[in-house]
Amino acid sequence: MQTAKNEIQIVKIGGNIVGDKKRLEAFLLHFAAIKGKKILVHGGGKLATEMAEKLNIPAQMVNGRRITDEPTLDIITMVYGGLVNKKIVAVLQQYNCNALGLSGADINCIRADKRPVTDLDYGFAGDISEVNAKQLIALLEAGISPVLCPITHDKKGQLLNTNADTIASETAIALAEHYKSVLTYCFEKAGVLENVENEDSVITHIDSSKYKQLLNNGIISEGMLPKLHNCFHALENGVDRVCIGNEKMISEQQPTFSLLTL
Amino acid sequence: MQTAKNEIQIVKIGGNIVGDKKRLEAFLLHFAAIKGKKILVHGGGKLATEMAEKLNIPAQMVNGRRITDEPTLDIITMVYGGLVNKKIVAVLQQYNCNALGLSGADINCIRADKRPVTDLDYGFAGDISEVNAKQLIALLEAGISPVLCPITHDKKGQLLNTNADTIASETAIALAEHYKSVLTYCFEKAGVLENVENEDSVITHIDSSKYKQLLNNGIISEGMLPKLHNCFHALENGVDRVCIGNEKMISEQQPTFSLLTL
Repeated sequence: MQTAKNEIQIVKIGGNIVGDKKRLEAFLLHFAAIKGKKILVHGGGKLATEMAEKLNIPAQMVNGRRITDEPTLDIITMVYGGLVNKKIVAVLQQYNCNALGLSGADINCIRADKRPVTDLDYGFAGDISEVNAKQLIALLEAGISPVLCPITHDKKGQLLNTNADTIASETAIALAEHYKSVLTYCFEKAGVLENVENEDSVITHIDSSKYKQLLNNGIISEGMLPKLHNCFHALENGVDRVCIGNEKMISEQQPTFSLLTL
Repeated sequence: MQTAKNEIQIVKIGGNIVGDKKRLEAFLLHFAAIKGKKILVHGGGKLATEMAEKLNIPAQMVNGRRITDEPTLDIITMVYGGLVNKKIVAVLQQYNCNALGLSGADINCIRADKRPVTDLDYGFAGDISEVNAKQLIALLEAGISPVLCPITHDKKGQLLNTNADTIASETAIALAEHYKSVLTYCFEKAGVLENVENEDSVITHIDSSKYKQLLNNGIISEGMLPKLHNCFHALENGVDRVCIGNEKMISEQQPTFSLLTL
């Protein structure tokens, strides 16, 4: 995967890659080899859950969603902001990619608002209010590759837990004014599947009309719905194209993946 | 404490300030108010030890020194590189200081060599081989204040645990070619004490001959010896002056502290 001079690649890796040391190292080798400007966004998968269990901090779930109380935020900050982020940066540096680990607080690069309490209090969960494109562009133009962990801040001293998919899409949108912005989601499957149980059923191209058709047919699995929504939100806000697939997308010559365009 | 145009302040805060939320916030408010270029270096004090205890990871001590085995390195990376570093950055951003948290791996800013195994194997402990002054200067000139945690890397993918005092002095030395470099150690005492049990016995000025005299008289306490050695090593390598005292040094009009010069 090559990047033209005026292009920015924003690549998000999912928890199943982050949590698998061998798979992560293979991915990072290929990420480092991407030419041109690039940003990596990572989650932390089950590592935070495992740490919470070790520390006997019970996961607070409401309607299947994790509530970020203060001990949970501390764990996320330790595991995602510290352990995962710094290890990724060290490996990328080994491969001569000039990586710089960032939370949203660092150089105030992603500001968020604490999610308002309605019938549900999500705790220290943050919804992005501003991506600081100017600071990120300055880094990118200096040859630095930001590595973003899924933590933001409110500029009032509070760190906040923020979805990594959303960090990737909002960052891609914020940079789309300055670059041809290409957003890539790497996860455990080869793409958006026609049949969730058949890895060979990757839908290779989804445009707006195909997306509506898929929604109407009820073909897209529940887990995929918010991801696709995120993708089309990005496309509608200036992102050039979105790719969804597994990590082979950035290493193979003729990979299979889903290409999303308007 | 004001900084002239061509001056850089490198301030190191000790574990007793980092571990005390109120004291840390007060310190950060004053650090943020320092005009001009500045770098903060922090340790993590007892927070990593507490976390190791919670996770039932026994501290490996040999001759009173902690050995950094892999689980210990992970804890240090989580606590210093994640929790402590990101919380400090978020608070500084609140006070409009454009802070950026860094380990030595980020933008390859501090490279170290794993300490050679002799009769003792220190594990993943790193001795600094190079501070990347060029990258740090680029950040400083862009109005960014680096916040360094005591973690370095070997540029071969391995993070390493490195003494925060040494990170501060080596960074001050590396920047001394470009700026008038001022190194400040904030810890729990008001300065270098003539009598370790009397807080009013601060030695306000120590130059090379006074230093030799103190060494010969055996006046300096054992804990202070490596710190002073570090300080004079910095002075002998281009650092303009070194200050040792508590955090009031950077907030009070006429603070008491020890000033060290050649």
